[in-house]
Amino acid sequence: MISPTLGVCYYPEHWPEEWWETDAKRMAEVGIRYVRIGEFAWSRLEPSEGDLRLDWMIRAMDVLGRHGHRVIVGTPTATPPRWMVDKHPDMLAVDREGRRKGFGSRRHYDFSHLGFREESARITRILADALSDHPALGGWQTDNEYGCHGTTYSYSPAALEGFRKWLAEKYGTIEALNTAWGNVFWSMEYSRFDQIELPNLLVCDAAPAHELDFRRYSSDQVAAFNRTQYEILKAKRPDLPVIHNFMSRYSEFDHYHLAETLDIASWDSYPIGHLAKSSESDEHKALYMRQGDPDNAAFHHDLYRSVGHGRMWIMEQQPGPVNWADANPDPLPGMARLWAWEAFAHGAEVVSYFRWRQAPFGQEQMHAGLLRPDSEPAPAYGEASQVARELQEIGLDGPAGQGKVAVIFDYESEWAWEIQPQAAGFSHGNHVRGLYAAFRKRGLDVDVLPPTTSDLSGYDIVAIPALLTWNEALRSAVANFEGYLLVGPRSGSKTENFSIPPRLGPDLGANLLDLKVARVDSLPAGIEVAVKGGGAARLWREITVGNAEVVMEDEAGVPVLLSQGKLFYFAASGDKALVQRVADYMIAEADTPTLSLPAGVRCRVRGGYRVYVNYAASAQVLSPADDEAGYVLGSADIPAAGVAIARLATAG
Amino acid sequence: MISPTLGVCYYPEHWPEEWWETDAKRMAEVGIRYVRIGEFAWSRLEPSEGDLRLDWMIRAMDVLGRHGHRVIVGTPTATPPRWMVDKHPDMLAVDREGRRKGFGSRRHYDFSHLGFREESARITRILADALSDHPALGGWQTDNEYGCHGTTYSYSPAALEGFRKWLAEKYGTIEALNTAWGNVFWSMEYSRFDQIELPNLLVCDAAPAHELDFRRYSSDQVAAFNRTQYEILKAKRPDLPVIHNFMSRYSEFDHYHLAETLDIASWDSYPIGHLAKSSESDEHKALYMRQGDPDNAAFHHDLYRSVGHGRMWIMEQQPGPVNWADANPDPLPGMARLWAWEAFAHGAEVVSYFRWRQAPFGQEQMHAGLLRPDSEPAPAYGEASQVARELQEIGLDGPAGQGKVAVIFDYESEWAWEIQPQAAGFSHGNHVRGLYAAFRKRGLDVDVLPPTTSDLSGYDIVAIPALLTWNEALRSAVANFEGYLLVGPRSGSKTENFSIPPRLGPDLGANLLDLKVARVDSLPAGIEVAVKGGGAARLWREITVGNAEVVMEDEAGVPVLLSQGKLFYFAASGDKALVQRVADYMIAEADTPTLSLPAGVRCRVRGGYRVYVNYAASAQVLSPADDEAGYVLGSADIPAAGVAIARLATAG
Amino acid sequence: MISPTLGVCYYPEHWPEEWWETDAKRMAEVGIRYVRIGEFAWSRLEPSEGDLRLDWMIRAMDVLGRHGHRVIVGTPTATPPRWMVDKHPDMLAVDREGRRKGFGSRRHYDFSHLGFREESARITRILADALSDHPALGGWQTDNEYGCHGTTYSYSPAALEGFRKWLAEKYGTIEALNTAWGNVFWSMEYSRFDQIELPNLLVCDAAPAHELDFRRYSSDQVAAFNRTQYEILKAKRPDLPVIHNFMSRYSEFDHYHLAETLDIASWDSYPIGHLAKSSESDEHKALYMRQGDPDNAAFHHDLYRSVGHGRMWIMEQQPGPVNWADANPDPLPGMARLWAWEAFAHGAEVVSYFRWRQAPFGQEQMHAGLLRPDSEPAPAYGEASQVARELQEIGLDGPAGQGKVAVIFDYESEWAWEIQPQAAGFSHGNHVRGLYAAFRKRGLDVDVLPPTTSDLSGYDIVAIPALLTWNEALRSAVANFEGYLLVGPRSGSKTENFSIPPRLGPDLGANLLDLKVARVDSLPAGIEVAVKGGGAARLWREITVGNAEVVMEDEAGVPVLLSQGKLFYFAASGDKALVQRVADYMIAEADTPTLSLPAGVRCRVRGGYRVYVNYAASAQVLSPADDEAGYVLGSADIPAAGVAIARLATAG
Ligand SMILES: [Zn+2]
Ligand SMILES: [Zn+2]
Ligand SMILES: [Zn+2]
Repeated sequence: MISPTLGVCYYPEHWPEEWWETDAKRMAEVGIRYVRIGEFAWSRLEPSEGDLRLDWMIRAMDVLGRHGHRVIVGTPTATPPRWMVDKHPDMLAVDREGRRKGFGSRRHYDFSHLGFREESARITRILADALSDHPALGGWQTDNEYGCHGTTYSYSPAALEGFRKWLAEKYGTIEALNTAWGNVFWSMEYSRFDQIELPNLLVCDAAPAHELDFRRYSSDQVAAFNRTQYEILKAKRPDLPVIHNFMSRYSEFDHYHLAETLDIASWDSYPIGHLAKSSESDEHKALYMRQGDPDNAAFHHDLYRSVGHGRMWIMEQQPGPVNWADANPDPLPGMARLWAWEAFAHGAEVVSYFRWRQAPFGQEQMHAGLLRPDSEPAPAYGEASQVARELQEIGLDGPAGQGKVAVIFDYESEWAWEIQPQAAGFSHGNHVRGLYAAFRKRGLDVDVLPPTTSDLSGYDIVAIPALLTWNEALRSAVANFEGYLLVGPRSGSKTENFSIPPRLGPDLGANLLDLKVARVDSLPAGIEVAVKGGGAARLWREITVGNAEVVMEDEAGVPVLLSQGKLFYFAASGDKALVQRVADYMIAEADTPTLSLPAGVRCRVRGGYRVYVNYAASAQVLSPADDEAGYVLGSADIPAAGVAIARLATAG
Repeated sequence: MISPTLGVCYYPEHWPEEWWETDAKRMAEVGIRYVRIGEFAWSRLEPSEGDLRLDWMIRAMDVLGRHGHRVIVGTPTATPPRWMVDKHPDMLAVDREGRRKGFGSRRHYDFSHLGFREESARITRILADALSDHPALGGWQTDNEYGCHGTTYSYSPAALEGFRKWLAEKYGTIEALNTAWGNVFWSMEYSRFDQIELPNLLVCDAAPAHELDFRRYSSDQVAAFNRTQYEILKAKRPDLPVIHNFMSRYSEFDHYHLAETLDIASWDSYPIGHLAKSSESDEHKALYMRQGDPDNAAFHHDLYRSVGHGRMWIMEQQPGPVNWADANPDPLPGMARLWAWEAFAHGAEVVSYFRWRQAPFGQEQMHAGLLRPDSEPAPAYGEASQVARELQEIGLDGPAGQGKVAVIFDYESEWAWEIQPQAAGFSHGNHVRGLYAAFRKRGLDVDVLPPTTSDLSGYDIVAIPALLTWNEALRSAVANFEGYLLVGPRSGSKTENFSIPPRLGPDLGANLLDLKVARVDSLPAGIEVAVKGGGAARLWREITVGNAEVVMEDEAGVPVLLSQGKLFYFAASGDKALVQRVADYMIAEADTPTLSLPAGVRCRVRGGYRVYVNYAASAQVLSPADDEAGYVLGSADIPAAGVAIARLATAG
Repeated sequence: MISPTLGVCYYPEHWPEEWWETDAKRMAEVGIRYVRIGEFAWSRLEPSEGDLRLDWMIRAMDVLGRHGHRVIVGTPTATPPRWMVDKHPDMLAVDREGRRKGFGSRRHYDFSHLGFREESARITRILADALSDHPALGGWQTDNEYGCHGTTYSYSPAALEGFRKWLAEKYGTIEALNTAWGNVFWSMEYSRFDQIELPNLLVCDAAPAHELDFRRYSSDQVAAFNRTQYEILKAKRPDLPVIHNFMSRYSEFDHYHLAETLDIASWDSYPIGHLAKSSESDEHKALYMRQGDPDNAAFHHDLYRSVGHGRMWIMEQQPGPVNWADANPDPLPGMARLWAWEAFAHGAEVVSYFRWRQAPFGQEQMHAGLLRPDSEPAPAYGEASQVARELQEIGLDGPAGQGKVAVIFDYESEWAWEIQPQAAGFSHGNHVRGLYAAFRKRGLDVDVLPPTTSDLSGYDIVAIPALLTWNEALRSAVANFEGYLLVGPRSGSKTENFSIPPRLGPDLGANLLDLKVARVDSLPAGIEVAVKGGGAARLWREITVGNAEVVMEDEAGVPVLLSQGKLFYFAASGDKALVQRVADYMIAEADTPTLSLPAGVRCRVRGGYRVYVNYAASAQVLSPADDEAGYVLGSADIPAAGVAIARLATAG
């Protein structure tokens, strides 16, 4: 693990070579130590087939190295050059509407296209051969933002062929597939695997199991694509990390699965753009339009720390206005510092700003950098410099410790409830993030765990918010867990083949939870059913039968929270007030100590320090916690977009 | 005609054969007598071409028959098996965007594809040959929900070829077509029929007559498809009824025309889903989200009774939450009973719940049945049982008598105002249903008549709400009608070739109505023009000239209701208040006796009884009518979702 | 120049030949002198290839000529006949989704298709040969509404081929193109021109320079199409004007460029439909739903007078309800007169109503004419007659004089901010029209100038609202301008290759304006930042640096209006109140005299008269201005939809 360090994304190919030296020097002055390069440079590395030009990149690495920078080299596979499309016209993906997507932007390739997969391996091998021994090399990034712009799914002939093979391997016989998918329904039975089509452009919905398997297949192709690059890169330099930069609220492939061939998970954090593009309410968006959602970056820090086997970076950090949302407001002064501090508090090793200098040309010319296009400092330049100085002064280090609370985030559940929402607007991710935020608002550190977790020990409280189906590991973890478990609606309501289990959801043994979901009452957006004592159910209510104890019920007398021992079942999706009540109830039951945080303020403990960040647009006053021994940065009067760091009394 | 009886939809192919006996026994216990099977089973009847497996279906019929059930066998043509698509790749339809729709759900066929039409005849012949003599056979259902999922229209080469032939037959010469369509406008003139294209993917709108003829052509293909099956089935067993199950607010083909080859019209009644998917206001949807619109099912009962030559069934009755609306709420307790009683009151012979047991797999796994997937009773199980008991006790029977009021519902008018709304949001169907509801809220039984009606005698009031064009039969019926006639806006405003008639709309002789529509003032949604005395015009106002008497006018002095003798002309589309005022005015003029019904309560007379149903979510109090002699079911205190039945004093 | 005269659009081919005489006579009775014919008549002029039938058109011209009418003959190229599509199947355009658009409406051709361009030349030559010497011929109209229904852009093979050639000519070498477009970004570099694709159906956005060049290419094709017809027509009769009829708020090609081969610019004015289809607020639309926006027609009069080298006609004037908006209200009585008077006040030579008689068939059968379909007068018949009488009485004549204020309207800026809005909802056109209206509400005559203007002398105030990039002519005009200049946000923020200029926007020398836009704060719709003193910024705020003086700032202290000498920079987009404040500030600085106009009233001076029009739905009272010497039409009490004309004291 690397102690908290700043980085930046740099495109030497965009600038005259004579600028590189000054750029590298100024980066060092800011306090930057990691520089990512190369991930979009294929046309400069190989302008025509086989005409390799790695010299300039080596010279750029030389310059950067001379100024003490460690270079992360991106494989350039997100932007295959134009000549390759002549060679492989069918490497272009086909969208759900059946339209082949052309060259002229980025990510114009199909994960199922084996010819391009070989090109990807080839250029990776070339980079590994040429650069592995460069003294400035600090690691690799594979491709860039897998899946961005809806590119995980392709409905191409290549995808069709791959899908059929994948199904044949998975099911062995066509009878097994027919049974698994329930194809007797509507006479959808196949007699050969090569009769199966992709689930797009049908008359009405495909069988949900058909859709789910196509998502699994597509997810597997992304993972296989990454594995190839990983193996090539690790073969040369087993000591250097291979990293990928993931995204916010993006779940089209299984990141846990892909990360089996990564050393570090990084992600690209654009809090303001992410909020603008989210499904949050207009009020919430207005409140945080210059800061971003106060829990979204944190959630992803914790998610990707889990995806990355405990290692997490921010590969791209928003420095100012971006270019890709409907509107792109200026951040509050201080946010470029706050976001970095928050990331470090959640365990980030490197926070790398995107990008060094705003490009005056191309698609992202309205995206800010640390420098303006005229090379003058943009506001984030000073904020990054401040973070670098503060890091040195405080010496924050060590891993982000285990929280008291964990939530399980599962990619297949994301897909499943998208395929079959039953209540439009119901989302697994929103459900998980709602619970995450409710615990975090009480000052608790919350870990995010994969659905394959086999041991929940060490946690006071674990939430399984809206899980598609149980696997054996998790069943056993639940059975052996000694803390308080909150199982949310829809959990266990399906088999792995997307059918209703024989004993109905939540499909836990009666010894664990004597309760069945008899039916579902799904509600239109805007309709709420008040819960006695406060809050309301919305979108989803389950009508349950069984002998579990009723803890909360709604005004119609339908149970909303039930329990059996330390296992609690949340039989509805709730508004923020209800979710907070349920979280608070669990906290009280588990007797977990909390903090009282002002609105907009959040915190995270790392290495003996508690880092407070203020997402509010106004100053707030902190109440020092019992376990704190004063502030090493800032004070209890925390300004808008401010950071305060308290030393824990328990820390050396 | 069959006395009121319950039925259920059953899929023996979905369940182990050893379950069939118990299922049949339990159905009988509920009081069910009709069981529909087979309509999606083609892949089990003929798993590969020519490999016929009707044995299991015969065994299922044996079991059902042993328990006293009459079986309705559906031809399985809504779900052609996968191998057939290999044989006829072009049997798949093409949507308006030009995309061929694939295999993997249902209704994946093109009505214009003659090869599939022959396959449809072939499998129908096979079923007729194998099952006609089965003692349990009670009738046939052709296909399933013709047109569902937008399948009436296909923009395929097969449709193009068929359309050109149909036009050649209709017009004889290309000159006649050019004149009829007004092709001189914009130089759209053709010199040969094979130059005519389908009206999709044009630069801007097609000629309205072109669109209308394509709709007529497409409608005719559905009718021809049905005719083939009908003739095969009737040839074997002329005594057994051939039925089709139509849908709610679905008008893409002319149901009257299709029903020339049906013995009974049935429809699939899902009141909650239908309301959710409708264009009703959000307030109305919230008020009735667990009941359905209080007039929609009734309207369709009356419409399909008319379509079915006086015979009407509910082939699929919603039993609990469905799966296909954006949100799918649980019905109020009692609604599965109320809906059945209301259907019987409107003349239904059989009300058949969909489905026996909720399927744990496939696209509809979240659709309730009488049984849960674990075979335990769902709420509708008990409600159906209650209906069966009550039917036996009361002995309701006989035809639904003729009402005092009739409205004309015309499929071509639906198409015409969709093709040329002129005011976005104007809909023939909404217009008809608005008037229907206004009369029905006064306790009047309202019949729905086809536009080909040649005799209106027996009615106090007849409404022709928004008729595209007059035919000779209706012109003569109107001329000879001795009751009160309400002609609505747009009526008679076009010729059959979709052009403005020489004497302008409403195109009635000056002896009948001396009034011309000089021009139309169409209004944006949300703009209203108040009418003196109450209510408002919206969407549509006609500026008329002529000597008809003004009965109501709006605040700008524009006449809204005019009259000449007993003929009234409604020159606007109105909000609910105005439509009610106009209906009430007609009722007063005609001196037709009404009832005073509480909000949400509706009623219908059948066979000496008046059946009251309460769609409100709260209890209501009935005022017994003068012609009633007490309640045989329930009382004047009618609970939410309740039913009360009064015996008429006039009844034996 | 022609003195103010009325015209009408007439389709002799739609009516029996025996009606022509009466029609021509009645037109003359109304006071009509110009009749446009022929623009959709190709199928009647050439029913099959080479079978020319111009005799009927000559006879129609004979009849019209006998009644004193001058005939404008339209080339019929907007409606190629069906047989031509058999001959050139690829003449049909392809839309952005990749779908080829079929025959059956109008404008079914691709400007890039050279075969159709030759057909267009051929039929133009035929008309020129046959009709040039007809004594009734008064001029020509080329095609009809170029670009209507989104037809400027085609994504066809023909367009691709043309685009590649155009690029090769523009850039000479592929390296030059790669540099201009910034193709190093995302490895989009090409090695040959034939590798370049059209910018549709990409994975994400194309490079903005790629999009912009495609728009320039497409615009050039429209201009080239027009040039061919123009040259043919002028060769025969250099004395007769060649005219095209443009549209409202339509900017997909550069009208200034196209008009290099026109003698007169005409446009089609449908005030009510244009408002309904606009992005104005619902409140504004409700207020003016029967009148149209009070500044929109005027803006286009002034724009097209500029496009037409000082000569402007209304080729199609709305007479009553139209058929093509979502709802199509009846105009207030008087509007058909008001619109004509306003057009004349802004310099129109001919105002030609569309159309003579409402067609009972075809796509536009619900579009009013001067006559109803039954040949009775519609309301506009009398209003047009009144205008004709009033014109004769008053004798308005001469050019529309130069205003005190000018705004620059630039088509490339329209395209640029559509390609890269950065704030959804920001529009160059709205920005320009907002300023135009603010000055006009003060009674000022406002001219619209092209971006190639090289001399601004004579104006008190010139506004350059949101200009993409400077050209040398305009730079020099600005440098030499002695009046007050208002430069709006985004102006000069890009180079002609759509990249940020080295010295950043607004890219004026520091001697003119010492100010740089450091970054942009773009705001979601609905978010406003109040400006001290009144009004608010919305959508767009620029954060500037430099030494310009701050004139207005917002509540966050960000400058909104800055100045250096007489040059003012407006660093935000504003709500109506802010735009008005800025306009008023400029007026006060320039000491330009204004008028006080009641709400909804506007005016324009022409030939010694000031014409007042009242767009309000209620009567208003005018305050006579110092320079007026009484009313020659109407009075200070101006009714709803009224017109009043004051003689200027300065006039002879
Ligand atoms: Zn991205
Ligand atoms: Zn259906
Ligand atoms: Zn147009």
